[in-house]
This record gives sequence, structure tokens and C-alpha cells, in this order.
Amino acid sequence: MCGTCSGDTAGNAPAAANPTTNNAPPSTSTNNSVYPAQGGPKSSPYQSIQDYLSNVNKFKIIESTLREGEQFANAFFDTETKIKIAKALPVSSPQSYEDCKTICKLGLKAKILTHVRCNMEDAKKAVECGVDGVDLVIGTSSFLREYSHGKSMAIIQETALKVIEYVKSQGVEVRFSSEDSFRSDLVDILHLYKACDKAGVDRVGVADTVGGATPRMVYDLIRTLRGVVSCDIETHFHDDTGCAVANAHSALEAGATHIDTSVLGIGERNGITPLGALMARMIVTAPDYVKSKYNLKSLKSLEELVADAVQINIPFNSPVTGYCAGIHAKAILANPSTYEIIDPHDFGLTRYISINSRITGWNAIKSRVEQLGLSMTDAQVKEVTAKIKQMADIRPLAIDDTDSIIRSYHLDLQEVAQG
Amino acid sequence: MCGTCSGDTAGNAPAAANPTTNNAPPSTSTNNSVYPAQGGPKSSPYQSIQDYLSNVNKFKIIESTLREGEQFANAFFDTETKIKIAKALPVSSPQSYEDCKTICKLGLKAKILTHVRCNMEDAKKAVECGVDGVDLVIGTSSFLREYSHGKSMAIIQETALKVIEYVKSQGVEVRFSSEDSFRSDLVDILHLYKACDKAGVDRVGVADTVGGATPRMVYDLIRTLRGVVSCDIETHFHDDTGCAVANAHSALEAGATHIDTSVLGIGERNGITPLGALMARMIVTAPDYVKSKYNLKSLKSLEELVADAVQINIPFNSPVTGYCAGIHAKAILANPSTYEIIDPHDFGLTRYISINSRITGWNAIKSRVEQLGLSMTDAQVKEVTAKIKQMADIRPLAIDDTDSIIRSYHLDLQEVAQG
Repeated sequence: MCGTCSGDTAGNAPAAANPTTNNAPPSTSTNNSVYPAQGGPKSSPYQSIQDYLSNVNKFKIIESTLREGEQFANAFFDTETKIKIAKALPVSSPQSYEDCKTICKLGLKAKILTHVRCNMEDAKKAVECGVDGVDLVIGTSSFLREYSHGKSMAIIQETALKVIEYVKSQGVEVRFSSEDSFRSDLVDILHLYKACDKAGVDRVGVADTVGGATPRMVYDLIRTLRGVVSCDIETHFHDDTGCAVANAHSALEAGATHIDTSVLGIGERNGITPLGALMARMIVTAPDYVKSKYNLKSLKSLEELVADAVQINIPFNSPVTGYCAGIHAKAILANPSTYEIIDPHDFGLTRYISINSRITGWNAIKSRVEQLGLSMTDAQVKEVTAKIKQMADIRPLAIDDTDSIIRSYHLDLQEVAQG
Repeated sequence: MCGTCSGDTAGNAPAAANPTTNNAPPSTSTNNSVYPAQGGPKSSPYQSIQDYLSNVNKFKIIESTLREGEQFANAFFDTETKIKIAKALPVSSPQSYEDCKTICKLGLKAKILTHVRCNMEDAKKAVECGVDGVDLVIGTSSFLREYSHGKSMAIIQETALKVIEYVKSQGVEVRFSSEDSFRSDLVDILHLYKACDKAGVDRVGVADTVGGATPRMVYDLIRTLRGVVSCDIETHFHDDTGCAVANAHSALEAGATHIDTSVLGIGERNGITPLGALMARMIVTAPDYVKSKYNLKSLKSLEELVADAVQINIPFNSPVTGYCAGIHAKAILANPSTYEIIDPHDFGLTRYISINSRITGWNAIKSRVEQLGLSMTDAQVKEVTAKIKQMADIRPLAIDDTDSIIRSYHLDLQEVAQG
């Protein structure tokens, strides 16, 4: 059994905060119609006009670090770590089952969901844990049906409807997801989702289990599904082909309501949509919504906690939290928005501008001179910049080296002035 | 001056191998019409039908590790390293200029391009280096025009046309690119690109300099541009919001011909479309084209070379080359394509399946038992799997630990049999 709990990220309103909006059929979602561009520079085209089905301005997150994340190669979460990460847990071993019960008792500001195979036995164990919701999952592609569980679509549907009815009867929220949705027969899965929707499922899930979907495929499938079911739509994207963040954005544009994430994207193989990267994407698309709803300042420490738990380094290229710098120092110093679309301060971080590269401009050096409290004319700054570039051609310079060159040059200037 | 060289990746046919196809106006590209799905599992929907403008089956790469990559915080490439990485170099310092000339003389199986600001002085220096092509770049958004160079669109166009004429007169290929294209006025840049196209530019470039574009924005802009110019279209995507790979794919679908990449995506801030991730994306979309054109087996060592040069770790979640594993061992052992859309062997790598996790299935253990040359019944494998899971609940297990448990169990079995 590989069931797990997950919940909305801490600090989130619970998923059902406004169930009527999310469960309303698309045609009645008029409160959604054409979002004006909000916040940020008014002329930025990055906050495009959305149509009435788009949810980029009101998406929800299913945080799956302790479900999907435990499928990551290095993951070994003990009870203490799980409680620390504090969201969810698997039922795949006796200890996992106990952990799930423990976390459900924590009273976190998040819904706790379990993730189980779509059968009655697993569903019962999940409900016993006292979770807020049960996520049922089953492979629907011919690949998975043939090689993994061997069930026909008719049997899948029959089982799904029974389990949905049971979970609902226990007063617990229920989601039904197909696995490997993008390699499943379109008519098959639409048929199945429609039946689950009729049976009163709270949410249907679409999963790119092998990570091969493109944003256009995602848009097409989700928009089609949006016209077939009236319940919420959850999406789950693996990152095998580097499209997990873009696919999530595309899904929201098409009318999906929920995105699965994990901290740093940890999960099976190279993982799923990373929470931090999705926040970076969505703060550009919908800045007001993201800033009002998420505690972005805790992102960096959350990533550090998880990176430490699974013994990985935060990738140098992680949006926002990765190791960042730029040569466009002139423009950034004049107006950060010229080359930076995300303000690091929104994430509790400071801007770092490398001034040690050979391609450093004198404006960056001028700024550093001022930071050091020294006084130089522009001509002098240009001269010391040339010295720094010359040195940088010979060996890499640390920030201290640059400062030394600047200070040494400034000292020479004073001596010349005094001499 | 921040000019640089870059070329098609080693092993590539030069960009101009079939210039008539690439320079033909869209309406005459009939040799392009509706690609059939090629290679791979026939039923995979990931190789979708493309329309006649799509270039996903015949894209070209502008490898920019030594141009964009030098803008990366840690980058310090000495001549030897540049020659090792062997593609390009900047003209932003005297040494860069010398390096460019050196690399041009190497006779690599790639075109060497320089990347310079769009003015006559820079263009002349670039041509002096003996490069195959010159990439001209200038910021066209109101942000960059106001805070970076302060030029009007009329002056930009006038300068661009003069420089294009000069470079062409020297028998050198020329590209003109706007910077921050997605925050530029659409009519302004279409007007500018059209004039450059008429002036005989070989390629126009679209750049998401701040990394805020989404796949749908990219598709719309490139498709519009495809109808305006008949020359090649190059695209450059920063990864600030995690969409650089998906945006590149979207650009090709819309008719772009060239994608800028760097090894591991190193570049300004958190970088651009990574070469490896793009290969992972495109081998799924167009397997035959990618396998026939690129030497994928050298990707891992190329990444290691560059990671070493800039002192970073290869991110754990890099597609293909990152640290990967999965729990879906049962299905993978039966048929890898059920959960793996990319065959690691295409990249000269082997498949790694973690069997130490608490959520390991007995099929994975059975496979390991066979690899160890031991003989057990299914019931026995299930029993030892339970032991391994039990141990994994207490502490993380290394592969050696798992093997020890299996061997110890097997020894016990033999003793029981003999006793």
C-alpha cells in the first residue's frame, strides 16, 4: 500500500474554504470572469488577461512532500522529520500508518489527505487514520493496465464508484485520480471521470506520471475535462522532461483548481512540480493572490529543512532560492525590474549582484565604492574597474579581492592628492 | 562589450546546412507538412501531430555556455577551459578577444558565433576575430530603453540596418535580436524585425531576458512573428520562473528554428534552457531526429566538465543526468516504458532502481536476489522483503545493507534445509 497524507501548504486557507466556487460548473463561474492585470508594473505583459475558466488567480496547492517525496531515492523520513515537515505520511508500512495518525492529531492549519490505491481495503485504512480526505489513484493507461495491475476500465470504474461511496459515507472528502492520464485513452478517462463526478467525488485528478506531457497537451486535456466534470480538478506533473512548472501553469489556465507540489520537487525519479518554482511562476502571473495567500518568506528555510532531511543540495538553478547573480548590474542598480521579474524581498531574501566577473561594468563598481564609503570620480571608478577586469583575466576574484583592489586604488589616490 | 562566440553543439550539422529550407517563407515550407509520429511506442501520445510550421522535428541549437554561461555567478573560464568546452567566447576584455581568435582557429565541427551589442564598433571587433557569424543584440522594452541604453526605436532600427549591412558585406552571417522581447511593444518589435528581415538578416532573435514568459505567450508571439519574417527565428529563454524548457518547446511548435542553450543552463541569474533538459524534452517529442543528430552519450561528461569549471553540483533533479530512482519497481522491471519515458541507455547511462526504500515491492527484491545469483521461492522473497521493510522503518538502508539482509536470509534458508 503506498498511501500518504498531504495537505494544503501551511498558511493556506483549506481547499474547501470556498467550495461553492470550486464545485460550480464552469458556465456559472461568472465571479471569475476576465481578471484585470493586478499589481506589479502596469505595462508588464506577464500578467495576461485570463478567460473565465482560468484559475491562475485562485489556485490551490496539494503539498505532497511526504507522499510523492518519500518516493525520492534519498528519502527517509522518521516520525520526527515528518512532524517537522508537518503535512502528511504514507501507509505503506506499519510505521507509516502510525505516523499518519500522529500527524492527523497535530491540528495543523492544513487539510491532511491520504493517497491510496483505489480499493476498499486501502480506503478503509486511510479513513481509520482520521484524515480529512482520501485520494484514490489507479493507472488507466494501457501500459499500466497491462504491466502494473491488469484491470479493465469497467472493473476500475466499478471499484472506483464503490470506494467513493464508502469514503463519502464516512464524511471524508474524496478525490479520484487516474495515473498516467496522458497515455490513457481520452474517451476512456473522460467516461470514468464523468461517472466519478456524478457519484459525488470532490475532485478528479489528472497525472502526468511519466513526465512526458507538454503545456499544450495539458491545456487541451484539462480544458476538455473542465467541460465534462463540475467538481474540482487536481493535476500532478512529473519533471522528466523539464516541463512540470510550465505544465502546472498551463493546467491552471485551462481551468484546473489544484496543483500537486513537493518541496524542491522531490519525488519519484527526478520529481514533480517544485513548490518554490511554482511560487516563482505564480507570483509573476498573479502577484496579489500569491503574496496574500502564501507565506513566501518561509520557503527558503522549508527547502533547507527538506534538503537536509533527504541529503541533497538545493539546485544552483532553483528559481528564487538558487544561487543567483547577473552581469546586468547597471540596469539592476538603476531599476531592479529591468532584469529581475521577481523581487527577492518577497521571499525574505536579499539581492546579490556579482561584481567580480570579467564582464563587470563600472556602474557595479561605482555602487560598491559607495557601499565601502569611499569617494571617487566617475573617471576614477572607470580606471579601477579596468584594473579589476585585468585581474579577473588572470584569476577568479572573490568579493574581498575586489574590495582590496578598490581600497588599494583609493589609497593611491589619496597619497597622490597629499603628495 | 559583452560579445561572445557560440556555435551549434559539437556533432551538429552547421545551422546553414539547409538554408533554403530555413529561409523559405512559411507558406512554401511544404516539405514540412504534418509530421507522422516517429519511433518509440506507437501508442504514445507524447509524439503529437505537428502542423506545417512546427519545427520540433528539425530544430537547431545555439550552444551558449561560453557566452550566456560566463554571466553565471561562478563562471571563470580560462583559455584552456574555454578550449575544453570548445565552442565560444566573449569580447568583453582583452583576454576574451584573444580567446575568441584562438577558438576560431580550432576548426571545430560547429559554427562559431559572437554575441555583441548592436553598434558598429562591436561588430567590427567581432568580424576581426574571424567568426562564422555575429549576433547583434539590443534591448527593445521600455524598461531597457529607459534604464539601460536610452535609445529610441527609430535609432535602434537605423543602427541595426547599418550594422547588418556591414556584417553581410564582410561575408559573415548575421543575427539581430531584441532583448526583453516579451515586455517590448509588439508592434514596435514586429516593425523592427520586418525591416531587419528585408535587409537580409540571416536570423532574428526573440529573448525572454527576465524569464517571465509562459508557453502560451511564447507560442503566440513566435507564431505571429513567423508570419512577418521569412528568415530563421532564434529564441532565448531565461529560467527565473521555471519555464525555460517548456518555452523552448513551445517556440519550436510555433515555428522557431533555433534554441539557445547552455550546459546545465548556466547563465545570468539562475540561467537559461539547459542543453540536457532540452534533449530530454525533445527526445520524447522527436526521438528519431534527436537520436540521429545529437551525440547524447557525451552529455553527462560535458555536464561534469562544466559543473567542475564553475564549481557547482549537477542538480539532483536534472532531467536524465540527475540523481534518479523510483518505487514503481514492479512495473519498471516488467516494462521500463510504463514509468520511464526516456531510456537512460540513449544517454549512455544505466537505469538505477532504488530497492532500499520502505515502499519497496517484493518484485524489486526478487530481481535483486536474481542479480545476486541466489535462489528463492516467491514466498521466501516476500518474507525477506518484509524484513527489509522492517529494517527500513528503523534506519535508512544502503544497497549493501539490503544485500546483507538478503544473503543472511538466504544462508538461514540453506541451514534450515541442511539441518
